This record gives sequence, C-alpha cells and structure tokens, in this order.
Amino acid sequence: MKNLLSENAAILIIGNEILSGRTEDKNFNYIAKKLSEHGISISESRTVSDNKEEIIKALNDLRKKFKYVFTTGGIGPTHDDVTAESVAQAFDVELEVNNEAFKILEGYYKKIGSEFNLVRQRMARIPKSAKLIENKISAAPGFNIENVFVFAGIPKVMHAMLDITLEKIDKKDSIIKANIQVDAPEGEIAQILEKILRVWTDISIGSYPFYNSDDDYGVKVEISSLNQDQLKKATNDLKKQLSKESIKYK
Amino acid sequence: MKNLLSENAAILIIGNEILSGRTEDKNFNYIAKKLSEHGISISESRTVSDNKEEIIKALNDLRKKFKYVFTTGGIGPTHDDVTAESVAQAFDVELEVNNEAFKILEGYYKKIGSEFNLVRQRMARIPKSAKLIENKISAAPGFNIENVFVFAGIPKVMHAMLDITLEKIDKKDSIIKANIQVDAPEGEIAQILEKILRVWTDISIGSYPFYNSDDDYGVKVEISSLNQDQLKKATNDLKKQLSKESIKYK
Repeated sequence: MKNLLSENAAILIIGNEILSGRTEDKNFNYIAKKLSEHGISISESRTVSDNKEEIIKALNDLRKKFKYVFTTGGIGPTHDDVTAESVAQAFDVELEVNNEAFKILEGYYKKIGSEFNLVRQRMARIPKSAKLIENKISAAPGFNIENVFVFAGIPKVMHAMLDITLEKIDKKDSIIKANIQVDAPEGEIAQILEKILRVWTDISIGSYPFYNSDDDYGVKVEISSLNQDQLKKATNDLKKQLSKESIKYK
Repeated sequence: MKNLLSENAAILIIGNEILSGRTEDKNFNYIAKKLSEHGISISESRTVSDNKEEIIKALNDLRKKFKYVFTTGGIGPTHDDVTAESVAQAFDVELEVNNEAFKILEGYYKKIGSEFNLVRQRMARIPKSAKLIENKISAAPGFNIENVFVFAGIPKVMHAMLDITLEKIDKKDSIIKANIQVDAPEGEIAQILEKILRVWTDISIGSYPFYNSDDDYGVKVEISSLNQDQLKKATNDLKKQLSKESIKYK
C-alpha cells in the first residue's frame, strides 16, 4: 500500500509491562489516528524494554530516519523509569535538574499535600536544551528535544501531551477516504484492485477481509487519496468493475 | 526491570492498516502472554509497512539478535501481501510454489466451491527450505524458516498457527508472580522497591501506578521470579517494609 503523506513519524513505546503482555498498549493506535488526521503518517513503530542501551539504540535509529519520533513511557519516579537519561545519552547532552520542571512539581505536591521527596525530584531531570511538554493531569512534564517528543505512558496523560504537541505542529493535508464493502472473498477481487491501482496513480488501496459467518464474509476496501477528484473517479471505476463481474458491494 | 527468562524473541507486525490507525493490533498482546507462559520473553517488537525493503531490513535485524522471531500479517492474496517474498529475500532463498501448500489450497477451494484462481495461487509461494505451519481456519499456511515463524494477521488464524508452533518448541521454566496493591502513590514506595531489589537478586519488580479517582489510587506492584522461595521471601520482605512505613496494601 502506497504512503500518500509526505511527513512521516515513528513511535517508540518503552516498557517491559507491554513486552511481557501484562499491559496491552492503547497508546499506539490513539497516536496513529491523531497523527493521521493531522496529515502525518507513521512509518514504523518499535517497542523496547526499560533498558537504557536498547532505548538509545532504537531512538538513534528512528530519529535519523524520520521527521518526528514520539516516545511513550518510562518518565515516572521509579527504578525502571530510564527514558529521560536514555534520551539525554542518545543526544549526548547532560541530564540536569530543570528549574521550571522542579517548580511545577514542587507546587503540585504542595497543592495535593504530598511530600516532594527525592524520588519524585527525579522527574525534574530533563535533558539540557529540551523544552517541557505540559502535563495537565499529574504535573510531571514530558519534553521535546530536536525532532523527539517524550510523552508519559499513562494514556490519559499521554493524550493531553499529544494534544498540546500537535497544536504546535502545522497541520498538513490529510487523507480523504472512501469505503466499499464487497460481498466476495479477497481472492476474487485482488485482480480488480490491482487494475484500479494501475489506472489511478494518486490513490492507495487497503483491502481488509472479514469473516463473521459462512453467510457473512467479504472484504472492506478502503480507497485513500489527498485528491478529492481522484478519489471519486477511482471509487466509481472500482464500482463499475465490480458490477461488470457481477460482484455485489455496498 | 530485569528480564528473568533466558529465551528471547521478537515480534514483527507487518501492515499499513496498523500503522495508519485503521486497525488496532490485537496480536501482539496475545503472543506476548502465550510466549510468557511458555517461558519465552519478548525483548522487542516492531511494526512496519507493507514494503519489502522495510520488512527485509527489520527481519534481518531481529533474526540475528533474538532466538525466535514471530511475524504477523501480509500473507494473503492481494497486492499488498509481500511478506513471503520479503522473507525469501531476507534469507536469500528462492520463493517457489510449494507443492504441499498448493495441494492444501486446491483442496480447500474445491471443498468450499470457489475457484482456485491465479491470485489465490500466490498463497502457495513459500520460501525454499521453509516448513509449512498449518492453518486450520482458512487453509493458506504460514511457514517457518530457521528461527523465523511467519503467521497470518487475522487474529483467529494467527492464534491457531501460534498454538501449533508452541507445541513444537520445548516449554521452558516460566515466571511465577506475586501481586500486591499498595494504597500510596508511586513516589512514596519507590525507595522501598529499590531496597527490595538490592536484597533479593533473583527477582524482578514491576511498578504500575493506577488512578481511578482522588480516593482510589495507588500502585500495583508485581514481583516476578523463576524461584518460588525467592518470590515468597521477597514478597514478605516488601510487606514488612510497607508496614514499617505505615503504608497500607492488599
């Protein structure tokens, strides 16, 4: 399937609890949809453990390859939260106590009547030259350094950080889509789809078979384009070809 | 968090529909849980698009680094199903029509009264020297070549292929776990957890904060070990330390 968007990104999910199966990642799909609406496509995603070397290696691979990298997880106060120090090492900058982050956290713990202890102070350590990303939910900020955006792993917090980040990235043309549900197995329409792709060059086609029962199966075909006119023409052409072969669709 | 299992694996998820956010991947978490029960830990996961170069690059990285690689997606009959040819190229072997796969598919389509057309015959192309992995649901087989296991992307089919595969891989010691729910925020128990980790060396600790409301929040602490005795001692020690600090748990 052709990628129609020119701006690309990668996602780096950090956390043993995802890899062990204990926690099901819900962040990736959320970010993918939001970025897609914003005109940015995700070209790759990786999940690595809470291990500095692994995080550094993956981050260095991805940040050189893609326009944006978004990371989730590993910025809390415990022993397995090693994202901030890994990002600092990847960029070869110091990890320092950020005064702004320190004040935000100090104020937050005062407000909720908890001690701002040494462990919590770890969350004020931010790579030098990084800009903070506000955390409206639980104060501890994310941060942005060059093309890398570091978010929390807790979905509610991550959502808030992503929203704030996307406000600062110009929205690009986003993809428009048409969906056709075909009452035939994939193997009977594959050649038609290939023909449509040869004729209409500014589109992309996704083909998603489904099977609910012996009487209810088929393929959900999704045509995507940045161009309304191409989308319409390709969709009409597909319908014409299906009718010619007496294949039902809706 | 320390990895206690000696056998490691990577998962490679193939499909634009996952990267675009259209489809939420459900396979990763299923595989992770099943492998964990089998004594195999997942050390890394990647998701790449239906692009041969990207698949080959990721596969060559992962298969050299880990004992097992499991891939999902891209073995259907359409234009964007390029996994089999990518795997063949990664291993530098020919992609050939596999007689056994051809017969299985031919029989299946005869049975369900559908034409075994050219497009469907694509699914009989398997890298030379690979062994087939049975597909009890919809016939088109997966395959295994060296340490790489190639599964379908449709969850029901993937589950069946994984079950058959795990029957052939010796079960290793699996991890045993103890869970303690602590009525305190993560920042107040982080130092206790670090202390426990210094004393008990054959365990691993995961710390998972949760927040349901202002009155219902805390941390789910999971202690893991291969050793029942260590697990019990470390868990009792943790409870003792929490009590000493007057922190409630259950």
